[in-house]
Amino acid sequence: VSSVDYRQVVEQIARDVRPLLGRGAVADFVPALAAADPKQFGMALSTLAGEEISVGDAGVPFSIQSISKVLTLTLVLGKLGEELWQRVGREPSGNPFNSLVQLEYERGLPRNPFINAGALVVTDLLMRLHPADPLGVLLDFARTAARSTSVHIDGRVAQSEKARSHRNQALAALMKSFGNIDADLDQLLDVYCAQCAITMTCQELARTFLFLANRGVVPHTSQRVLTTSQAKRLSALMLTCGLYDESGDFAFRVGLPGKSGIGGGIAAIIPGLLSVAVWSPGLDGCGNSLAGIQALEQFTTATGISVF
Amino acid sequence: VSSVDYRQVVEQIARDVRPLLGRGAVADFVPALAAADPKQFGMALSTLAGEEISVGDAGVPFSIQSISKVLTLTLVLGKLGEELWQRVGREPSGNPFNSLVQLEYERGLPRNPFINAGALVVTDLLMRLHPADPLGVLLDFARTAARSTSVHIDGRVAQSEKARSHRNQALAALMKSFGNIDADLDQLLDVYCAQCAITMTCQELARTFLFLANRGVVPHTSQRVLTTSQAKRLSALMLTCGLYDESGDFAFRVGLPGKSGIGGGIAAIIPGLLSVAVWSPGLDGCGNSLAGIQALEQFTTATGISVF
Amino acid sequence: VSSVDYRQVVEQIARDVRPLLGRGAVADFVPALAAADPKQFGMALSTLAGEEISVGDAGVPFSIQSISKVLTLTLVLGKLGEELWQRVGREPSGNPFNSLVQLEYERGLPRNPFINAGALVVTDLLMRLHPADPLGVLLDFARTAARSTSVHIDGRVAQSEKARSHRNQALAALMKSFGNIDADLDQLLDVYCAQCAITMTCQELARTFLFLANRGVVPHTSQRVLTTSQAKRLSALMLTCGLYDESGDFAFRVGLPGKSGIGGGIAAIIPGLLSVAVWSPGLDGCGNSLAGIQALEQFTTATGISVF
Amino acid sequence: VSSVDYRQVVEQIARDVRPLLGRGAVADFVPALAAADPKQFGMALSTLAGEEISVGDAGVPFSIQSISKVLTLTLVLGKLGEELWQRVGREPSGNPFNSLVQLEYERGLPRNPFINAGALVVTDLLMRLHPADPLGVLLDFARTAARSTSVHIDGRVAQSEKARSHRNQALAALMKSFGNIDADLDQLLDVYCAQCAITMTCQELARTFLFLANRGVVPHTSQRVLTTSQAKRLSALMLTCGLYDESGDFAFRVGLPGKSGIGGGIAAIIPGLLSVAVWSPGLDGCGNSLAGIQALEQFTTATGISVF
Repeated sequence: VSSVDYRQVVEQIARDVRPLLGRGAVADFVPALAAADPKQFGMALSTLAGEEISVGDAGVPFSIQSISKVLTLTLVLGKLGEELWQRVGREPSGNPFNSLVQLEYERGLPRNPFINAGALVVTDLLMRLHPADPLGVLLDFARTAARSTSVHIDGRVAQSEKARSHRNQALAALMKSFGNIDADLDQLLDVYCAQCAITMTCQELARTFLFLANRGVVPHTSQRVLTTSQAKRLSALMLTCGLYDESGDFAFRVGLPGKSGIGGGIAAIIPGLLSVAVWSPGLDGCGNSLAGIQALEQFTTATGISVF
Repeated sequence: VSSVDYRQVVEQIARDVRPLLGRGAVADFVPALAAADPKQFGMALSTLAGEEISVGDAGVPFSIQSISKVLTLTLVLGKLGEELWQRVGREPSGNPFNSLVQLEYERGLPRNPFINAGALVVTDLLMRLHPADPLGVLLDFARTAARSTSVHIDGRVAQSEKARSHRNQALAALMKSFGNIDADLDQLLDVYCAQCAITMTCQELARTFLFLANRGVVPHTSQRVLTTSQAKRLSALMLTCGLYDESGDFAFRVGLPGKSGIGGGIAAIIPGLLSVAVWSPGLDGCGNSLAGIQALEQFTTATGISVF
Repeated sequence: VSSVDYRQVVEQIARDVRPLLGRGAVADFVPALAAADPKQFGMALSTLAGEEISVGDAGVPFSIQSISKVLTLTLVLGKLGEELWQRVGREPSGNPFNSLVQLEYERGLPRNPFINAGALVVTDLLMRLHPADPLGVLLDFARTAARSTSVHIDGRVAQSEKARSHRNQALAALMKSFGNIDADLDQLLDVYCAQCAITMTCQELARTFLFLANRGVVPHTSQRVLTTSQAKRLSALMLTCGLYDESGDFAFRVGLPGKSGIGGGIAAIIPGLLSVAVWSPGLDGCGNSLAGIQALEQFTTATGISVF
Repeated sequence: VSSVDYRQVVEQIARDVRPLLGRGAVADFVPALAAADPKQFGMALSTLAGEEISVGDAGVPFSIQSISKVLTLTLVLGKLGEELWQRVGREPSGNPFNSLVQLEYERGLPRNPFINAGALVVTDLLMRLHPADPLGVLLDFARTAARSTSVHIDGRVAQSEKARSHRNQALAALMKSFGNIDADLDQLLDVYCAQCAITMTCQELARTFLFLANRGVVPHTSQRVLTTSQAKRLSALMLTCGLYDESGDFAFRVGLPGKSGIGGGIAAIIPGLLSVAVWSPGLDGCGNSLAGIQALEQFTTATGISVF
C-alpha cells in the first residue's frame, strides 16, 4: 500500500465523516472538556516507513484522557514484567468502565488495566516504581515518543476531574479494602487525574503510539520500552479491552488494537506498519468518539488492512 | 405474664446457652473488638411496668456497633420525618451489609437505614441537622434513654475502625458520586465510626430501647422522640432489616423487631411490653451473636410472646 | 375493639379508596386477568370471634394468583416440617420475584417460598407428598378453610398462564440443573399454573386465612394444619417476604403479615384476632393492588392494631 | 516461513506438552465425553498453500462441541447478514458461558454468538433458515469444508447432552420469555445438542477452518461462504469471545482468533496463511484444553506469527 493511497483514504474519510460532526454528546462531567467544539475532527497517521499524514484538526491539542492508560501501562509493564498480572487481570470486563460490581465479586482484582479500577492499580504501581516523580517520568516518555515538548498536563482539567472523582475514589477505596492499593488514596487520585489530563494533538498522538506498531521500540530513538512479546500482548489487550463496552464491536468493525478516551480521541495501530490517531469530541453512548470510530472503520475497509 | 416468669425464663436461658459460649468467631477486623472474651454472656430485660431483670455479664460494657444505627435513625426520623425516605429506602437488601453492588445498580440510594450505606446517609443527615455537635446530641440521647452517664464513645475502637474503614469510604464515595452524601467524606467517617464505638452494658441497652416498646416515648422522662406511627414503623424496619443477611431468619425464629451489632450485642423489643438486650461476642456466619440469637429464640418460645 | 368499629372503619375505607379505583395497571400478561374491571374494590374481615364484615365487591370471585402460595406452603410445611428448609430459604430476596440472578449465584436454592422459584420448589414438594392428586388436596384444603364449594380452579386462566410461563420454565429448569427440582418440568408448570388460578371471593379469602390468625387451627373444623410455632413462623415469612419487592414497605406502612397476588388480591392477618382480605385489580409498580395496600394501611392506622 | 519450520515447530510442541498431558480435568457432565483418555494430544495444520502437517493423535475423532458454533454462525451470518445482530450482540460477556445473569439484565439479548445463549439464538435462526433439515445443511457444510465424509454427529453424545441440558433449557426459556427464540424449545435443544456432538479429527478440523483463514472462501471448492468483511469480523469475534472466560488471556498469550470446545479441541487461524487445530481432553479451570492452549502459545511464540 503506497503513501499516496493513505493520503487519499484519509482525505476521503475527512469528507465522509462531516455529516457525523456535531452529533454525539461531548463529555460533560468535566467543565473543561464540555467546552470542546463538537464540530472538530482531526486524523493523523505515522508509518514505520517515516511518513506522516494528517487532515482537519490534527494539529489541535486535546485531552487524551484514558488513552494515557496505555502509556502508564507501558512504563509499568516494561519495568515490572509479569508480576503486574498478580494485581490486575487481562480479560474483558463485560461491565461499565467504572463499575464496582465485578470488583466486589472478584475481591478487588480488576479485570483489565483499561477499566478505571485497573488503571488505578497501574497508577499505584507507577507511583511505587517512581516514587520521586511518577508524573515526570510519564510526561518524559510521552514527550519523547511524541517528539514534542508541547505535550503537557492540563492542570485545570486535572483539578476539575479530581473534584468530580468520587466514583474513582470509591473504586480505589474498595480495592484498598482488599489490599490491592498501596498508595495514599488522595495522592493516587492526584496522579491518576493528572495523567488523564495529558494534552496532545493527533499528530503527536500518532507518533506516540508508533512504538507499539514497532513491537516495543520507539523508532526515532531506537529505545526499547517493551519486549516484542510485551508489545504484542499489550496490543491484544487493546483489541479486547481498549474501547470500554464497545471493545468487541470495535474489534468487529475496525479490527485494530485501539484505545479511546472520553476527550474524543482514539489511537490505534497496525502492527509492523503504522499508527493512527483520530479525534472528534462528540461521543456515542459508550463514551467513544462517534466520528472517530467511523473514520477508523472506513480506514480499514478502504485499505483492506486490519489484523484479521 | 408475671415478673417471676421472666426471671425464671432468663435464668434458664443463661444455663441453656452455656454450650454455645466460646463457639462462633469474635469480630477481628478491629483489634479492640478482637480482644473480647468469647465466653461472656449477658442478658437484660426492661419492662414498661418498670421491672428490670438481668443475668450473667449484663453489667459488662461492650461496643454496641451497628445497634447504634437505631439511635441515630431515631434522632433523624424524629426531627426530619418522611423527608428521610427520599434519601434511603426501607426494603430488605438481600445483599451483604457492606455491598456496593445494589448501591451501584440503584444509583446511590441505599435499600434501608441499617445496611452500612443507609446508615452513612442517616449519619450524613444527623450531621446536617446538628452541625455543631452531632455526636454530642447522639450521646446525650443514649445517656438519657439508658439512664446512665457511663455510656460513652470508646475512642480507641473508633480510631481503630476508622483506620480500617476503606469499605465504608468506598460506599460513601459512591453515594457522593450520585449526590446522596453532603458531608465531607473524612468527617462523615469520623462521626460514623465514633457512633459505632458507643459502649454500654446490656442493662443500659435494654433501658435505652424501652422508648421503642413504649411507642416513641422515653418512659422515665415522658419525652416523645418518635410519633406512635414512627415508632411502629421503625420497629417494622428492625424486623425486616435489623439482623443483616439473617433478618428473615431472625423474624422466622424469634419473631421480634431487633438490631444486632458485630460486637455481639442484640437489642429487641416486644411492642407495648418490654425491651431485651443480649450480648455474647461469638458470632455466626452472618455476623450476629450466636448465643444471642439462641437466647432470644428461647425467650419467645418459652414465654409464647412474639409479635406474631 | 368492637365489631361496630370494624364495620365503620371498613365502610370508611371503602369510601376513601374510591379516588384510587381505576388507577394502577391491571395485570396484562394473561388475557383472562387483563379483562378485569379496575374500578372494582372489595374488602372482607373475619374475626376469630366469628364476625364477618364485608364491603363493595367482596362477593365477586377473582383469581388469587400468588396468594395461593401460602396455602401450598401450609400443606407442605405442615406435613414435611423443618426438612422443607433444605430446599428453600427464608430470607427476603431483594430482587424481582421472578429473577434468575440470585438463583444462579446461590446455586438453585431460592431465597424464600414466595418468590416464584421458591413457590415452584414448594409445588414440587406438594407433588411428591401427594403424587396422586396434588391439586385435589390443595383445592380440598382451600374449600374447607373457605367454607365454600364455589372455590375452584379457573382452567382458562391456568391454561393462559401456562402458555406464557417461559420465565417460570427458565426458573424451574435452572433449579433442576442444580438438582433442586424432582418433578417433570411440564407437569410441574401445570400444577403451578393451576394453583395460581384458584378463584375465590374476598369473603372466602378472609375465611381461608383465619387458620393463620388462629395459630394453625382452622376455627370451624378445629383441625390443626400447622403447629403454633409453624403458624407464627409462616406469618413472619409473610411479613418479610409476602409482597414482592414491596414487602419492607408493606411492613413499614401496614405492619401486618400479608400476601398479595397479581390478580389484585391481598390477604393479611392480625395474629390472635382476625384475617382480612382486599381486592382491587389496579396494581402499583411492584405488582400489588394499589387500593388494596391503601385500604390495609388505613385499616391498621384507624384501628391502631398492627403487630408492632 | 517455510513448511520445514512448521513441521519442526509442531513436532517440538508435541514433545514439550507431554508433561501437561493427563493434567487438567476431562469434562464429566456428559458420560460419553468423560471416558476420553486425558493423555491424548493431537495437532494439525493446514496452510492456504496446501500443506498439511499433523502430529500425535491428530487422526483420532473427537467431539468438537462448542467449536461447532463457528460453523453454525457461518451458515447463518452468510445467509442472513447484518440482520443477525438484532438478535445477538458481539461484545465479550465477562460472565460464565452459561450464565443467566447478564441475559436477564439485558432482557434476553445474548452478548455474543459463542456463549451458550447466543449460540442457541444462532441455532434458532439456522432452524428458521433451513426448516426442513438444519442439521443436514450443517453437516454437509462441515463435511465439504473438512473434505471428509467421516464427519458425523455422535448420537450417543447428543442424547447424553440433551438429558443434561436443563441449564440450556433455562437459557432458552428465558430468551423465549423475552421473545428472542422462535423455535419450539424441545426441538431447539435437539438441534443444539446434535450440533455440539459433531465429531471429527484434528486434521479434518484444521481443514474445516481454512475458509476463515481464506477470508470466506472454502479453498478446494472455491465456494464463498462469507464475504471478506464477514470473515474478518467473525475472526474478530473469535479473538474477543472464542475461549469462554479465557478469551482475553488467549488473545494475550496466543494472539490468534480461536474457538474452543469442552471436548478439548481448539481451532485457530492465522488470516491469509493457515488454520491450526489442537486436541487434548484435559481442561483448565475455564473449560479450555490445557495442553491445547500451551501448544498454540508455543506455536505463535516459536514462529513469531500472530495477528499482532
